[in-house]
Amino acid sequence: MKKLAIEPLTRAAFEPFGDVIELDGAKQIPINLGTTIRFHDLAHIDVEEQNGRPLVNLFRGQPRVLPFEVKMMERHPLGSQAFLPLNDKPYLLVVAPVGDLDESAIRAFVTRGWQGVNYAKGVWHHPLIALDEVSDFIVVDRGGDGLNLNEQDLRESLWLTEDAMR
Amino acid sequence: MKKLAIEPLTRAAFEPFGDVIELDGAKQIPINLGTTIRFHDLAHIDVEEQNGRPLVNLFRGQPRVLPFEVKMMERHPLGSQAFLPLNDKPYLLVVAPVGDLDESAIRAFVTRGWQGVNYAKGVWHHPLIALDEVSDFIVVDRGGDGLNLNEQDLRESLWLTEDAMR
Repeated sequence: MKKLAIEPLTRAAFEPFGDVIELDGAKQIPINLGTTIRFHDLAHIDVEEQNGRPLVNLFRGQPRVLPFEVKMMERHPLGSQAFLPLNDKPYLLVVAPVGDLDESAIRAFVTRGWQGVNYAKGVWHHPLIALDEVSDFIVVDRGGDGLNLNEQDLRESLWLTEDAMR
Repeated sequence: MKKLAIEPLTRAAFEPFGDVIELDGAKQIPINLGTTIRFHDLAHIDVEEQNGRPLVNLFRGQPRVLPFEVKMMERHPLGSQAFLPLNDKPYLLVVAPVGDLDESAIRAFVTRGWQGVNYAKGVWHHPLIALDEVSDFIVVDRGGDGLNLNEQDLRESLWLTEDAMR
């Protein structure tokens, strides 16, 4: 059973895969006479290819249990896809760089506190892996013509386990 | 003291001003082998004018207290602006139709449960009116060149009061 190390999600570590959406380090703009803070422009939304348009959706994910078998990955070749959680519960991410899927380059992350992610266009990722409870996410992705989903089975499964979180 | 009636927020009542973002009545698509429900395309994001692009932000609003004096309105002439709450707390909306501001056409709404809104381009609205506690919202609006904010003081203040909620 081949285990994936599960790394803490940070902007630096996730940089090859897209944006970490979090308030620490975000540009803050006081608005509305100081009654509101605008944490500004948290993700690079990239949905214009082939006349795409931004979609706002809500994903409601069933919790998955560990150990969890990663058997496949998917990617959206025409646009980015951002996930913004409605709560502060940890969830897991499994990603691999743009291009032909390199199974040796697959990495896993766990969130801490309120953290979202924006997968850059073409980045391989596993579908939503919520933990513990049914979890809602605002998802901003691409609508429009063209095939925007590729799925690929792994040659060898990878496992997410409790003891692999560090 | 001129009071505004505060109406329950419904898709039908809010139709002249944009979208109500809610799960009841949304298109549901099971994805990820049935482990996730996608509540699909919840708002008409309209940010392309003058080469605009979608921004994803988080607004953190201080709670306002009732009675609350509505002294001004604002609008974004170049794009829509969507608010998606991170909690289920009620908040207030004050809106008026596109065009020259008609103070006699101003209406107020209160949310119930998880409800967001997407102000259509050019719709007059009051800045965020959170209640009870500091409240976070995901905001999807427009970035890019051009003046995208007009503010206008009211000739006569309007008041939001507890007893006006029905």
